[in-house]
Amino acid sequence: MSSLQQRKEDHIRVVLEDTAVDRRQSGLEQIRLMHRALPELDYDAVDPRCTFLDYTLSFPFLISSMTGGQGDALGRINRHLAEAAEAMGVAMAVGSQRIMLAHPEAAESFRLRRYAPSVPLIANLGAVQLNEGITLDDIDRIVDTLEADALYLHLNPLQEVIQPEGDRNFAGLADKIAEVTDYLPIPVILKEVGCGLSPADIELGLQAGVRYFDVAGRGGTSWSRIEAHRSDDDLGITFQDWGLTTLEALQLARPYRERAHLIASGGLRSGVDLYKCVIMGSFMCGVAGPLLQAATESTEAVIQVIERFYREYRTAQFLTGAATFEQAYDNAQLILRA
Amino acid sequence: MSSLQQRKEDHIRVVLEDTAVDRRQSGLEQIRLMHRALPELDYDAVDPRCTFLDYTLSFPFLISSMTGGQGDALGRINRHLAEAAEAMGVAMAVGSQRIMLAHPEAAESFRLRRYAPSVPLIANLGAVQLNEGITLDDIDRIVDTLEADALYLHLNPLQEVIQPEGDRNFAGLADKIAEVTDYLPIPVILKEVGCGLSPADIELGLQAGVRYFDVAGRGGTSWSRIEAHRSDDDLGITFQDWGLTTLEALQLARPYRERAHLIASGGLRSGVDLYKCVIMGSFMCGVAGPLLQAATESTEAVIQVIERFYREYRTAQFLTGAATFEQAYDNAQLILRA
Amino acid sequence: MSSLQQRKEDHIRVVLEDTAVDRRQSGLEQIRLMHRALPELDYDAVDPRCTFLDYTLSFPFLISSMTGGQGDALGRINRHLAEAAEAMGVAMAVGSQRIMLAHPEAAESFRLRRYAPSVPLIANLGAVQLNEGITLDDIDRIVDTLEADALYLHLNPLQEVIQPEGDRNFAGLADKIAEVTDYLPIPVILKEVGCGLSPADIELGLQAGVRYFDVAGRGGTSWSRIEAHRSDDDLGITFQDWGLTTLEALQLARPYRERAHLIASGGLRSGVDLYKCVIMGSFMCGVAGPLLQAATESTEAVIQVIERFYREYRTAQFLTGAATFEQAYDNAQLILRA
Amino acid sequence: MSSLQQRKEDHIRVVLEDTAVDRRQSGLEQIRLMHRALPELDYDAVDPRCTFLDYTLSFPFLISSMTGGQGDALGRINRHLAEAAEAMGVAMAVGSQRIMLAHPEAAESFRLRRYAPSVPLIANLGAVQLNEGITLDDIDRIVDTLEADALYLHLNPLQEVIQPEGDRNFAGLADKIAEVTDYLPIPVILKEVGCGLSPADIELGLQAGVRYFDVAGRGGTSWSRIEAHRSDDDLGITFQDWGLTTLEALQLARPYRERAHLIASGGLRSGVDLYKCVIMGSFMCGVAGPLLQAATESTEAVIQVIERFYREYRTAQFLTGAATFEQAYDNAQLILRA
Ligand SMILES: Cc1cc2nc3c(=O)[nH]c(=O)nc-3n(C[C@H](O)[C@H](O)[C@H](O)COP(=O)(O)O)c2cc1C
Ligand SMILES: Cc1cc2nc3c(=O)[nH]c(=O)nc-3n(C[C@H](O)[C@H](O)[C@H](O)COP(=O)(O)O)c2cc1C
Ligand SMILES: Cc1cc2nc3c(=O)[nH]c(=O)nc-3n(C[C@H](O)[C@H](O)[C@H](O)COP(=O)(O)O)c2cc1C
Ligand SMILES: Cc1cc2nc3c(=O)[nH]c(=O)nc-3n(C[C@H](O)[C@H](O)[C@H](O)COP(=O)(O)O)c2cc1C
Repeated sequence: MSSLQQRKEDHIRVVLEDTAVDRRQSGLEQIRLMHRALPELDYDAVDPRCTFLDYTLSFPFLISSMTGGQGDALGRINRHLAEAAEAMGVAMAVGSQRIMLAHPEAAESFRLRRYAPSVPLIANLGAVQLNEGITLDDIDRIVDTLEADALYLHLNPLQEVIQPEGDRNFAGLADKIAEVTDYLPIPVILKEVGCGLSPADIELGLQAGVRYFDVAGRGGTSWSRIEAHRSDDDLGITFQDWGLTTLEALQLARPYRERAHLIASGGLRSGVDLYKCVIMGSFMCGVAGPLLQAATESTEAVIQVIERFYREYRTAQFLTGAATFEQAYDNAQLILRA
Repeated sequence: MSSLQQRKEDHIRVVLEDTAVDRRQSGLEQIRLMHRALPELDYDAVDPRCTFLDYTLSFPFLISSMTGGQGDALGRINRHLAEAAEAMGVAMAVGSQRIMLAHPEAAESFRLRRYAPSVPLIANLGAVQLNEGITLDDIDRIVDTLEADALYLHLNPLQEVIQPEGDRNFAGLADKIAEVTDYLPIPVILKEVGCGLSPADIELGLQAGVRYFDVAGRGGTSWSRIEAHRSDDDLGITFQDWGLTTLEALQLARPYRERAHLIASGGLRSGVDLYKCVIMGSFMCGVAGPLLQAATESTEAVIQVIERFYREYRTAQFLTGAATFEQAYDNAQLILRA
Repeated sequence: MSSLQQRKEDHIRVVLEDTAVDRRQSGLEQIRLMHRALPELDYDAVDPRCTFLDYTLSFPFLISSMTGGQGDALGRINRHLAEAAEAMGVAMAVGSQRIMLAHPEAAESFRLRRYAPSVPLIANLGAVQLNEGITLDDIDRIVDTLEADALYLHLNPLQEVIQPEGDRNFAGLADKIAEVTDYLPIPVILKEVGCGLSPADIELGLQAGVRYFDVAGRGGTSWSRIEAHRSDDDLGITFQDWGLTTLEALQLARPYRERAHLIASGGLRSGVDLYKCVIMGSFMCGVAGPLLQAATESTEAVIQVIERFYREYRTAQFLTGAATFEQAYDNAQLILRA
Repeated sequence: MSSLQQRKEDHIRVVLEDTAVDRRQSGLEQIRLMHRALPELDYDAVDPRCTFLDYTLSFPFLISSMTGGQGDALGRINRHLAEAAEAMGVAMAVGSQRIMLAHPEAAESFRLRRYAPSVPLIANLGAVQLNEGITLDDIDRIVDTLEADALYLHLNPLQEVIQPEGDRNFAGLADKIAEVTDYLPIPVILKEVGCGLSPADIELGLQAGVRYFDVAGRGGTSWSRIEAHRSDDDLGITFQDWGLTTLEALQLARPYRERAHLIASGGLRSGVDLYKCVIMGSFMCGVAGPLLQAATESTEAVIQVIERFYREYRTAQFLTGAATFEQAYDNAQLILRA
């Protein structure tokens, strides 16, 4: 097994075994919503549908980037996720596709369009790889394999520092990202992996031609803590709660929402959390950790988790009296300030 | 036994058995009152009497809507409550009377005027039933059976969503409520059941001709949690603390107190809580959960609970130096701000 | 034994046995002082002396009103307290002297001048007794027995309500207090017993000619809780934390400090607490509960407790760089605001 | 063994045995830093170097004053610390050198220049000793023995009060300090030992010619608690959390940073803590307690602790996008305010 492959499997094992990897402090619990006793709506007519990358989704749910690689296990996880995305009408992103460049046989696990023909699929690569020899051709391959509608470039400086074998050269990345946005016909989405994008990061991204930003804040899966399990010092524990919470990141990103499409992720644990993010100006919401266990089991298990999020989301939308996604999106009046 | 009947009995059992159904977070503990070491009053001359629907009550206590239905158990509960209301000189509301429309023999449990000739009695119906075929004639029957002084229309969108067999069509209710207020010679009171009325709800109610509002906020009995016991998913747990606390609801309702009579309820657990609500502009205070156990036992047991509330209320009024209800009502100077 | 006597002994037993009677929430822990690393003082030259009622005291410590009555036990407590006050150069107040009016043999326990010839002694009576037949002659007797330098009139409306045999007629007291201040050649001090004086109380007192006020706030010994032990309902528990904390009462009283001498008491548990009160404008600080156990033992035991307060007080004065009482008194610059 | 010697050994034992001596409340946990997902830096190029007393250090770390004295144990501790300082390129201060004046054989433990030829070494004396017969000649001896680059004069009024044999005459010290600054060719640094310097202290120091201030705030090693172990009363426990936290002291000292070089210490427990202090305007950061156990073991053990601080510091600098020390120093924009 390649070391990259081994690393991926280690990550999954740690997330499933160490429950404290999920930090449960996104900050969203501080936001309270305005209940409507007289919503003037029929629950059955409440419509949570939204559009993303020209697709209509059943609600603003995005299976966030997790995995892919050599061997049966990772392939099965991705297939379960893709089939569930198709069944539920939600978007799906895959984990970093770097492995398929070094190990072409890993590409198989990213050929998901056959399972999910009618929902957005998003390719994924660590932006730091642009400093490690990745070419525009490589990116073409990554995107084509997935038949992707967009490309996630993830930014994970903390994870790379904690990781014993990490790639730590984040110099000059903004220019390299600009080359990718220039070249690619599909949108590039910039995302963190659990420490949050800051306003300065969004400014750099905008200058580089990026129009989609996933804040990926602190409060859910902690990569610093995951990597601590694979390291022989405590650095990852010291930094396990480093960064902007998802709430903080969203609040700081809000002024950019005219020029940028905002995606929320990081510690979203119920449909109510998702709905709060929509109210605060996110048009799409990513969830990773809560799906992993189900994804190792079956498509049906993943569907059940997404259905729970859906019921919660729809109930919250009903109870705040919003008939449609549009009535909730970026609507601060739905926030309770007492 | 009819399913409606079964449901009512389930509810009562759950409230009595699961102590966490009482959420104990009305927010009122944040309000502190201004003690007077020199109240310049004789405790024996302190007068907590007030008027409600042309009756004089011993203090602003309202037994909030709970039950009624077929069979001995529910009838006995209502009789105990009614006799205690009469003995103590406080108001009483009954639980939803919808059951007596489908099952006429249930009407017996709502014939309470014989036990409570000299206090206000309030009929009760879920407003959502106005979308389910209830007619103005039905409402006449409901009101007449109780010989009621007012009609509670309760709004419970969360409960209906969690409830497996819930009625969820809350569309166009405001207009239907307007028809009822037009038709009925007695006042209609709008109430929630534990999530709070929001300002927008009160606005709609005012337009529909309603002049009495029971905010029925979050913090006491949680219907979402109660229904979770009867459901096979966790939705009711996720939403068990949804809504405006009684304190928040009261604060947001305060600006309407010139045009609307405000009733407070939801998690009021002592006479001090009641007194705080009066100071914040409520002219009547409802209590449900704390009376249920006693109501299954005897009239005397209910009286004892109400007497405790009375002593606490009177003591608080004395210690803040208010000789009469009027001196306390809507008097923000009695709140301690330090 | 008379019932009044029995009651006093019950009180003492409860305070000694139920540690939760001391509520430990005076609010003073929120005040932080400004440390001086360079105090520019010799600790041995630090001078905490102050004057009270024309006496010079070693520091602003007042043994607060506790007891007195028939029988050996109460007499011994008072003797220990008086001897310790004399030895330490601090002031002492006695408990309510009402008992000596009904039972002349109780007067003996209040003849303390022989043990404490050179410190202020303060007589004590419940103000509410002015509505229960107490005459100016009675007050003369009370003051003369103690050879008192001042008279405490305590206000305890909550205690009287909780107490089964309580005197609850607090009407018209301000006028009666004015008669006493007119009549008596020595100062009258108004005090609560653990719920705090409010600004309105101080206003009434000033109009009645009172110039000394002991705020006696919430946070230390809870009389409501003590009386709950002697009652068969829970009223005293419900109200055990009623009132203004000592910190709140002091802050609200501060604007009156030009026209009124302020004494702090209620939950003062260290010399640092005392020192904070002085900084906030109290010129004397009362302590009761912490002395009771020692007072049942010996004069020496009481002295040891007061010596602890003294060391703590002097250390705090040294560390904030105040050479004298005057430099600390009402000096808000010594409070740390960061 | 001399009593001074005995005392030093007692102190070390207490710090190692009573974990509550470390109060863990510096306040720095309240400061949150702005994460940069796109730092635009190569981690390997991040440069935490800084200058202190004309030396270039690998990062702003100062081994804070701890010990020295007669016998092998203390000498070994100092040697381990000095060798580690040299190996890591950080500064080192020694503990109070007063003992070598009374016991010349103790001087040996302070001859550390041979182990640390290329880093700053700082001599140490209690400022209060200037009132106890210490002469300028004595100070020369102290400085010369260490071949010191600066002299710490520590201010510890609380410790001296708690200490049974304490020197408590802090009167007129500012003038005596001025004599030292006039006389000495090397800088004098004023420091507390865990209660914080206040603005008034810094003002006095500036007037006395001091230009370096180590705030040495509350929140780490508590000398009051340490001395409580050697005393027979509880004074040291009552005062164990007295003073300004390191965060408060830094915030209050900030306005002086144009005229004064600020050093932070007191409860700094990770490289992130150090980095926060730099951002808030400290150019050097002292750590004592966390090094003690390692110092009793070996040079290598001390190096490992400092390396951990270094990794944490460098990671934090990288993640906030600061290429150099200068970009981080006094740069409030790196603080997250959300
Ligand atoms: C097992 C696992 C693998 C992940 N792998 C990637 C990845 O390859 N690329 C990426 O951008 N994010 C990756 N993430 C991060 C997630 O996309 C997401 O940003 C983060 O987990 C926060 O969301 P959560 O709190 O809902 O888990 C992974 C997360 C998990 C749990
Ligand atoms: C057993 C039970 C049954 C109830 N049934 C009704 C009802 O039929 N109609 C209604 O408007 N409210 C009903 N309620 C809600 C109460 O009237 C009240 O709004 C709510 O319980 C909050 O008050 P509490 O915290 O004092 O219990 C019921 C409450 C309980 C405990
Ligand atoms: C045993 C005991 C008896 C007391 N008796 C009196 C009293 O007779 N008159 C009075 O004014 N206060 C009385 N007090 C109240 C105290 O003077 C004081 O106001 C109160 O206890 C708060 O102070 P502490 O928290 O230091 O105990 C008594 C307190 C105690 C503990
Ligand atoms: C064992 C020990 C001995 C110390 N001795 C001295 C001393 O002699 N002189 C001095 O200025 N500070 C002395 N200190 C105080 C430290 O220099 C420092 O100000 C304080 O411990 C706070 O830092 P910390 O929380 O990192 O331990 C000593 C600290 C320790 C732990």
